[in-house]
Amino acid sequence: SISQDRLIEKKFLLDKTKVQTAKFYECNSYEDLVNAKNLIKGSSVLKTRRFGYDGKGQIKINYDTDLLEAWKSVGSNKLILEEFVPFKRELSIIIARDHNNNVQVYDTVENKHKNHILDQTIAPAPGISDKIAQSAKKIAINIANELDLIGILAIELFELNNGDLIVNEIAPRPHNSGHWTMDGCVTDQFEQAVRAAVGINLGSTERLFDIVMQNLIGKDIYIADNLINDPNCRVYRYGKKEVRPGRKMGHINHLIR
Amino acid sequence: SISQDRLIEKKFLLDKTKVQTAKFYECNSYEDLVNAKNLIKGSSVLKTRRFGYDGKGQIKINYDTDLLEAWKSVGSNKLILEEFVPFKRELSIIIARDHNNNVQVYDTVENKHKNHILDQTIAPAPGISDKIAQSAKKIAINIANELDLIGILAIELFELNNGDLIVNEIAPRPHNSGHWTMDGCVTDQFEQAVRAAVGINLGSTERLFDIVMQNLIGKDIYIADNLINDPNCRVYRYGKKEVRPGRKMGHINHLIR
Repeated sequence: SISQDRLIEKKFLLDKTKVQTAKFYECNSYEDLVNAKNLIKGSSVLKTRRFGYDGKGQIKINYDTDLLEAWKSVGSNKLILEEFVPFKRELSIIIARDHNNNVQVYDTVENKHKNHILDQTIAPAPGISDKIAQSAKKIAINIANELDLIGILAIELFELNNGDLIVNEIAPRPHNSGHWTMDGCVTDQFEQAVRAAVGINLGSTERLFDIVMQNLIGKDIYIADNLINDPNCRVYRYGKKEVRPGRKMGHINHLIR
Repeated sequence: SISQDRLIEKKFLLDKTKVQTAKFYECNSYEDLVNAKNLIKGSSVLKTRRFGYDGKGQIKINYDTDLLEAWKSVGSNKLILEEFVPFKRELSIIIARDHNNNVQVYDTVENKHKNHILDQTIAPAPGISDKIAQSAKKIAINIANELDLIGILAIELFELNNGDLIVNEIAPRPHNSGHWTMDGCVTDQFEQAVRAAVGINLGSTERLFDIVMQNLIGKDIYIADNLINDPNCRVYRYGKKEVRPGRKMGHINHLIR
């Protein structure tokens, strides 16, 4: 989570909600890390507590990883070591909650990454079972209520092979995986955040279209000129002056119909 | 039509398109008006050629109207006298046309007026027959092609009791009766105008919702605060500082579902 402290977030999820998360250990020294590593049987991920996003501030730890080198490479001694959970796919769900405790939940979506950066969001998540969709919704409502959220919250989930859902991280703001709502829903995530903030009723999160949201990373932005002519493509440019590798320059909402 | 000369517009419609219009006569003097009045059997409407909108710059002429007084009241000697056509209701249709001559037509809507000012647009026009809807579409395409339009055009129509359609006036711009498209359609009339102007493909005019567009005239704007909480109301305020009677202060798109 870019805006929060991972440790506080994980402790909140563990203590206050009944959601499943990956096991984690606080590491404030190399010694802590060695101890934590011994407590986790399989692979794990070492993460900075703050300022991590798009795969930054984290490193995977396998059985043969040089632990001291890993420790040095992350450049912080406020860390957590998290159990690596083998998952089928990443899902996310966005919830809005207002000052009257009313909630509106968007459909659960699937997220695909390239180089640790969100590449595509597919809305709704292809082939998602009713059971998993309901389970994601319950998790979202549970977390939003426990936070006493007024605003919107994105929740990243790992869908496991057995159908269980693990909460990966939460972000209390409009989220890249919710950009599809700009064309896919009656009320988009940005308007929803404003509605919650100014204290008017939330809008409907009803889905109007199936959408594939394609991030335009770095030089991908140059394809936008062609796609603007496709009546089923809604192209967004963020107006960033410099094109840099890995930089989110825009996105496309592709209406599927 | 606010932006055009009624006489030129009427002559264009008469000479270039096969659409039906009300009979009209050019009047550049009181004498012309007297002659025109004698040529029209029933009631008629005296209109300024330019700057007329919301019923401004026009006066109805009945058999007992003081013609000289009417002549003086309109305050111009560039006028037309138009046959008054008894109609069942007013319809309008908006068409977009691009530089490749592709057209996209919105659904035909019904317009209701109060004090000569558009009060409501109902989209689609309630109970409109396929025949009349097709006829409106043909009229729109015909006019857009004859104008070699690149942009968008609103066409106001009178539906007569016998099912005939009479073209009342045309406006080559986004139109109040097209504000429903902001929430009712995949691509709204404003985006369509921009698309045509910058030379990219037009978007889809597919209707997503039935909409009642309610203009907020003068003090109507004060109801906006309540309606903003209705999830089926989309409220637009134009940010005009002074509330004046008859002034268009905003509108509501009411989603019907």
